[in-house]
Amino acid sequence: MKYTLITGASSGIGYETALKFAERENNLILVARNEDNLQALRAKIQSQHPKLDVVIKSVDLSEPKKVHQLYEELNDYELQTLINNAGFGDFNQISDQDFDKTEKMIRLNVEALTILTSLFVRDYENVEGTQVINLSSVAGYEIFPVSLTYTATKYYVSAYTEGLNVLLKNKDAKMRAKVLAPAPTDTKFMQRSLDKDNFEYQGNVENYNTPEEMASYLLELYDSDKTIGLVNAETLKLELKDQFYPINNLSGDYD
Amino acid sequence: MKYTLITGASSGIGYETALKFAERENNLILVARNEDNLQALRAKIQSQHPKLDVVIKSVDLSEPKKVHQLYEELNDYELQTLINNAGFGDFNQISDQDFDKTEKMIRLNVEALTILTSLFVRDYENVEGTQVINLSSVAGYEIFPVSLTYTATKYYVSAYTEGLNVLLKNKDAKMRAKVLAPAPTDTKFMQRSLDKDNFEYQGNVENYNTPEEMASYLLELYDSDKTIGLVNAETLKLELKDQFYPINNLSGDYD
Repeated sequence: MKYTLITGASSGIGYETALKFAERENNLILVARNEDNLQALRAKIQSQHPKLDVVIKSVDLSEPKKVHQLYEELNDYELQTLINNAGFGDFNQISDQDFDKTEKMIRLNVEALTILTSLFVRDYENVEGTQVINLSSVAGYEIFPVSLTYTATKYYVSAYTEGLNVLLKNKDAKMRAKVLAPAPTDTKFMQRSLDKDNFEYQGNVENYNTPEEMASYLLELYDSDKTIGLVNAETLKLELKDQFYPINNLSGDYD
Repeated sequence: MKYTLITGASSGIGYETALKFAERENNLILVARNEDNLQALRAKIQSQHPKLDVVIKSVDLSEPKKVHQLYEELNDYELQTLINNAGFGDFNQISDQDFDKTEKMIRLNVEALTILTSLFVRDYENVEGTQVINLSSVAGYEIFPVSLTYTATKYYVSAYTEGLNVLLKNKDAKMRAKVLAPAPTDTKFMQRSLDKDNFEYQGNVENYNTPEEMASYLLELYDSDKTIGLVNAETLKLELKDQFYPINNLSGDYD
């Protein structure tokens, strides 16, 4: 029995993506900090798709030890798809920077994503039909000085994931690695980025997608043979691309 | 009395950069893990420039708490220039990945650089003549799948530093932020990246600079009004640029 693992599944793009994979009768492993939300999502999915196995894991992935521990706990499940969707932004100016938040963001957006992806690649790269989709952002392809550290983490994610797919192709592995780069999407992202209790996209952000639209785009990328799904921030449409950043195919044999 | 703070000063580009700033009669704060090497470098500098104050700090910057502690210890010194040179690579394949090394690398190349830069900006951004130079790599502008996680950390550094300079200019701050992106340079970099006891550039790497050449390029970037010093990996020459990655100047006022 094969599973799709989705991080940050308790709300927003992750939540809607879980519903989409459930519609396709994929068994699910749903990870997020908020256990109540995960339980409610599981109940909703199981009422519609009673045959599916839905495993929930309440974990704070900004602690690297817990990322390793989570993966070990999943040892008995056969994974097919990994969606690294968990992540948040930081819109504080440097003068007001909360370093705990910055470090948590780097550990979640960068470290946890790298650890989970590496463990998944290590175990499944030669299994037909396996795929990892990492959530970057338009800020992984264009610098937003207003969210400097967040932008930089997304440059990391884009370069890492694009490079990983080249690496997999170069060694004839069966797994594919893809990067989804959303434009603003009506989720809790801005709320957390701005440290606000609430944030209304309507009236505050010029163009934005709904999380349902982004989940559809994610599935479109999943089904395609392209590497990158970049959302055009003006038209809000998905653009599928093979590659964005240049690749140096130095072999690395230094013996 | 003003100081130039250089991390990773015990060897390679950092070591040679310390000598160059000493030639210009800059007081120095030299940071690295190896205290013996720092003491030898201080002795060498003080024999040639007896008037200079050379402070050495033996710290492992891959531990974020120690980065904050270091900066606090420097409270009594007036800083003028920050050179974030400390960093290392990881050329292990994913199947052989040592996660401790990966996490240390992310904490040094990404977290420590972000923390030190932010603290420096916070205290000195409105002081004329202040400057931060962050060491990226040609791998911050071109993906090297053979050193995937390292490449991704350098994409972080490039985007972060380019964006920071825009942010500083937008608010009419006096500080400048610049990014130096070396091509291969004959230092201990490859040795550490490949986990070898020794590595000869001669015969193993087609084109490389000496650390003295890179230190000269760093000073050339320091003296220029350009943001990026990118070393052309074929000609090994320095190319100075205003900007590389596109900038989105969204204001970020969401009130």
